Amino acid sequence: MSNIDLKAIDTLRVLSIEQSTKAKSGHPGIALGAAPIIHTLYTKVMNINPAAPDWINRDRFILAAGHGSSLLYSVLHLSNYGLTIADLKDFRQYNSKTPGHPEIVLTKGVDATSGPLGQGIPAAVGMAIAEEFLRNKFNKDSLELINHYTYVLCGDGDLQEGVTAEAMSLAGHLGLSKLIVLYDSNDIQLDTEVSETNSENVKAKYEAMNWNHILVKDGEDIVAIEAAINKAKSSTKPTLIEVKTIIGRGTTVANTPKAHGSPLSSEEALSLRNLLGGEPFEVSSEVKEYYKQNVVLKGEKTYSTWVDVKNNYTYMFPHEAEEFKKVVDNDFHIDFENLVEFDNKYNKATRVSGGAILDALSKLHPTIMGGSADLASSTKAKGADGNFSSKNRLGRNINFGVREHAMAAISNGIALHKGIKVFCSGFFVFSDYMKPAMRLASIMELPVTYIFTHDSVAVGEDGATHQPIEQLSMLRSMPHFNVIRPADAFEALYAWKNAYNSKDTPTALILTRQDVPVISTKEDAKYLEKGAYVIRKEDKKVEGVILASGSEVSLAIEVSKELKRKGHDIRVVSMPSIYLYEKQSKEYKESVIPTNVKNIMAIEASEAVHYYKYLGSTGKLYNINKYGASAPGDIVMSNYGFNLQDIVSSYLEMVKDNRK
Amino acid sequence: MSNIDLKAIDTLRVLSIEQSTKAKSGHPGIALGAAPIIHTLYTKVMNINPAAPDWINRDRFILAAGHGSSLLYSVLHLSNYGLTIADLKDFRQYNSKTPGHPEIVLTKGVDATSGPLGQGIPAAVGMAIAEEFLRNKFNKDSLELINHYTYVLCGDGDLQEGVTAEAMSLAGHLGLSKLIVLYDSNDIQLDTEVSETNSENVKAKYEAMNWNHILVKDGEDIVAIEAAINKAKSSTKPTLIEVKTIIGRGTTVANTPKAHGSPLSSEEALSLRNLLGGEPFEVSSEVKEYYKQNVVLKGEKTYSTWVDVKNNYTYMFPHEAEEFKKVVDNDFHIDFENLVEFDNKYNKATRVSGGAILDALSKLHPTIMGGSADLASSTKAKGADGNFSSKNRLGRNINFGVREHAMAAISNGIALHKGIKVFCSGFFVFSDYMKPAMRLASIMELPVTYIFTHDSVAVGEDGATHQPIEQLSMLRSMPHFNVIRPADAFEALYAWKNAYNSKDTPTALILTRQDVPVISTKEDAKYLEKGAYVIRKEDKKVEGVILASGSEVSLAIEVSKELKRKGHDIRVVSMPSIYLYEKQSKEYKESVIPTNVKNIMAIEASEAVHYYKYLGSTGKLYNINKYGASAPGDIVMSNYGFNLQDIVSSYLEMVKDNRK
Repeated sequence: MSNIDLKAIDTLRVLSIEQSTKAKSGHPGIALGAAPIIHTLYTKVMNINPAAPDWINRDRFILAAGHGSSLLYSVLHLSNYGLTIADLKDFRQYNSKTPGHPEIVLTKGVDATSGPLGQGIPAAVGMAIAEEFLRNKFNKDSLELINHYTYVLCGDGDLQEGVTAEAMSLAGHLGLSKLIVLYDSNDIQLDTEVSETNSENVKAKYEAMNWNHILVKDGEDIVAIEAAINKAKSSTKPTLIEVKTIIGRGTTVANTPKAHGSPLSSEEALSLRNLLGGEPFEVSSEVKEYYKQNVVLKGEKTYSTWVDVKNNYTYMFPHEAEEFKKVVDNDFHIDFENLVEFDNKYNKATRVSGGAILDALSKLHPTIMGGSADLASSTKAKGADGNFSSKNRLGRNINFGVREHAMAAISNGIALHKGIKVFCSGFFVFSDYMKPAMRLASIMELPVTYIFTHDSVAVGEDGATHQPIEQLSMLRSMPHFNVIRPADAFEALYAWKNAYNSKDTPTALILTRQDVPVISTKEDAKYLEKGAYVIRKEDKKVEGVILASGSEVSLAIEVSKELKRKGHDIRVVSMPSIYLYEKQSKEYKESVIPTNVKNIMAIEASEAVHYYKYLGSTGKLYNINKYGASAPGDIVMSNYGFNLQDIVSSYLEMVKDNRK
Repeated sequence: MSNIDLKAIDTLRVLSIEQSTKAKSGHPGIALGAAPIIHTLYTKVMNINPAAPDWINRDRFILAAGHGSSLLYSVLHLSNYGLTIADLKDFRQYNSKTPGHPEIVLTKGVDATSGPLGQGIPAAVGMAIAEEFLRNKFNKDSLELINHYTYVLCGDGDLQEGVTAEAMSLAGHLGLSKLIVLYDSNDIQLDTEVSETNSENVKAKYEAMNWNHILVKDGEDIVAIEAAINKAKSSTKPTLIEVKTIIGRGTTVANTPKAHGSPLSSEEALSLRNLLGGEPFEVSSEVKEYYKQNVVLKGEKTYSTWVDVKNNYTYMFPHEAEEFKKVVDNDFHIDFENLVEFDNKYNKATRVSGGAILDALSKLHPTIMGGSADLASSTKAKGADGNFSSKNRLGRNINFGVREHAMAAISNGIALHKGIKVFCSGFFVFSDYMKPAMRLASIMELPVTYIFTHDSVAVGEDGATHQPIEQLSMLRSMPHFNVIRPADAFEALYAWKNAYNSKDTPTALILTRQDVPVISTKEDAKYLEKGAYVIRKEDKKVEGVILASGSEVSLAIEVSKELKRKGHDIRVVSMPSIYLYEKQSKEYKESVIPTNVKNIMAIEASEAVHYYKYLGSTGKLYNINKYGASAPGDIVMSNYGFNLQDIVSSYLEMVKDNRK
């Protein structure tokens, strides 16, 4: 290793340690062990341009081991991504650009929010899928708009996570050769030595999963690290480069779990600094210059070469260039009103109308892509142009296999990459499997569309294990996450419109397995964007309001008609999205649910707790508080109280109670 | 294969088909393909006694591929587990014993509720851990109280799930040699051929994960299946027996995804029946007799031999026999009041008091066992007697590795086994990873204890990805699931009491990372069992009620004191468990939260939607509706409004609004 490389690596180490020691919080171990890997990537390997951190063709880097954030911030500082020394000194402080784990919404140069173990590699798989697809779609011979690698730095924890295993299995199957994972293999995890909890044969396992495995025996040997990466690039498979490192290298806690999560003392931080010289947080001009030459200036050059290529491309292929710009900017304007012709006799399941809408969208937006965890034939949500595979790189349907969690985490990566509008689908009850990745989508503000079908106990025969009860509440409880449960085909259309046009909010479309009648009109359903609207107005003076969503809206309308016959004047509100409703003005809300109405009843075949907010002390929640049952769907629904008679009785009881 | 075996296998097939065809719903493919495996297990392999389906030393069987339920019901019928032909005819009907997927609470002979793919193998891993532990703990030379195998039948879908990969990795590491997984390898899954989504080298992968792999090339060859099982038994590793079968064998849809999830037509079902003769749902006396001899009578004999052993054991080792009985019956009576001595100066984090309680319990209950997903040093929840490992079979701490989901799913298996009181622990935000298994625990009515620490944005520096916001709502939304968030050490004691004494409800203990003052007394805290209680009574006439849980209760008390100084008479209610509160009488509820009080405010550092129920139209929810932030915990809390001044102002605002 050259002297300057050594100095730069030590600078990364010391800067990182100084951050966590100053913050009295952080993870010094990985920074000390993995600094040579990061240095190699940034100065010798990656095609990046710090001046254009969002460049579509940059190499991507995900720090799957997000607890190593201080190391990432150090290299972003040296690489001139906009993080100052003051930012580093502000590590883990309120409103800083240097939070405890890297966050894409806060810090330039961060390619993915990470920290929850297991999520990084799947996100990288998503990026690699996006790259394969876009490269094959747009490149013309030597005019390469897209041609980049995706790199990951992960630790033992990541590889123990099931979601990683799912994603790596799929990546191997798909032959994503431009995905290169660097495995910081230090034999230590938070609680113990790795050998206390894991004894897999790493090489054999990943080779069996269609990955290359390359071992770098000495994590200090940056020549070997670079050589391993070059070897990985020549392969037709994704590559796992296992780099043996020493956690907390050079400290008194080296090689022990103690190095993982507790900052070093000021004394020990100072003694590390002494190896380097200078004041705390100081960077020598030599190291600054080295990064300027090898990252900043090299990056500008690389980028300008690409701009030349793009200009040539635009000249030679103006139509494709325009399309490329549109997909990268996600700049499509779909006329949803005329996208699919539904009529008031289209009494099909919303999964069917949803599928028709997706098919129509796929024709207009050439990079809508997504898939299902082995349930496309049931969810009716399938991408166009065949299955994406090692043989068909233009297929827009991803057969994720029975890998729900990876599906969601990979979708994050596809969305992070840009250029593709991504969806994924499954049975609603199995959103449970995807929750960690959905939360991360929401934190990252990614407009992923989740299509969840089989949305209530009306699933029927498959029984309790397959019938969602609490899943609507689970997703509605997430900040910055839109749950839309349309009542019919028209509402499904506007639900899709909302999901499709979202720029920074993930959206879950909650669709039925069973047929539902069309009850709205195309005009009415436009109000879906307000979250709730009056779908059946009272005749004269409103006695009560029934709120409902999805398949229960038609039932609510029947209830209101029956109550009318009994002399009760009822308004029915279709409430497909509480998230959108909450964004409306007080006036709009008052126009939908008047505050002076006592008798407000919410009916939903779910736990439905979020409706309590609208019920006051005199309203009633008509919901389900137990697990489902196996029987034909209509029988389960009826036995669980979702029938005309029971709901009418329950309403009348409420009115009686309120008159007391 | 003998004639009678063939006939019995065909009977299983036809009975299964007839169930799904009659129900017009179900999964014929697996029943036709895997019938020989099931027949071999029940008649030639397993030590079971249908007359004592809960026998602690029975071999366990989990149908991980729960969609094959009709096949399981067929074999349970033949084996005399209490399922009648009428039950089979009632397949997938309301209130039947034969639901769409097997449910342990509904059907004798079912060892685990299954259906959600991926959960079966981890549950079996849990059973195998329990068996290893109890066998090593109780057996005396030839007097073997515990010595059984755990069998699983799984499909491709199961093996694609990450949670399975996690559990199998751990099982291999732990050398659980009495775990035998039969893999119904038919190359077909719901949407496609397996080869469309997976191309792993099965043998090499699982061998690398420290499993045996045995291939049975012909799934009809029951001699080979039995031989493979015998070979597996002689190994020191868990074994995966890959049995090549034909999905939907013998039908027009054989070998295609169509065989998976749609019932056969009546005509095709009849033509299958013709191969066998007799009327639909008929079983020949020959097959009945064969099962009687080879399952029922053999089972009785096996069982009676074991009873003899147990009697000898009881004679020779009365003390141990008594202990064995106690652990199997879970019949311990812990004096919680005097379990741990806390005083009113014990101002530590509830994770610390929780750890102290667990340590004390572990001394009194010799089979409390559990562990953490690589976070025991942070959650302070550690089992006694060292790590459970291939060398220490009596260790009661399971180092699960960074495998949260498998941890929860394995805990289900340990609880299902009986004999062990199981807990598991992690950071609360990562309960997201465990949700599918927690739901299943709840459906199965298993008293698993989940210890979740780092319970709010007060986690601090680790930032948004590590700070729970919506997790309390997520868990509270689950039916039959108790969430307890104690405010201090005394409440932690009674929270543990509730979790420990639970016989059929899973319980999550939500504990702080940060120190909290003791604010209750040992006497007060007993009211935790009622879910909520008045922790600070108004002085004279109550103007308002503040509800709070966990670390916010002490803040609520401070708020009430400050408001008192301003002339407002406030009651503070500690509400550690909404689940328990909902079980109380109307009178008790009225005594805690009087309905005539207008000014009710709930404060909780979470999304906290479940409090709306108690707020009426004039109350206020003081919660968090965005993701967290990285900074020292007290600074995040304060910036998120959890400080005296902001809450006092907010309360006063509410009072003002309500006076209008």
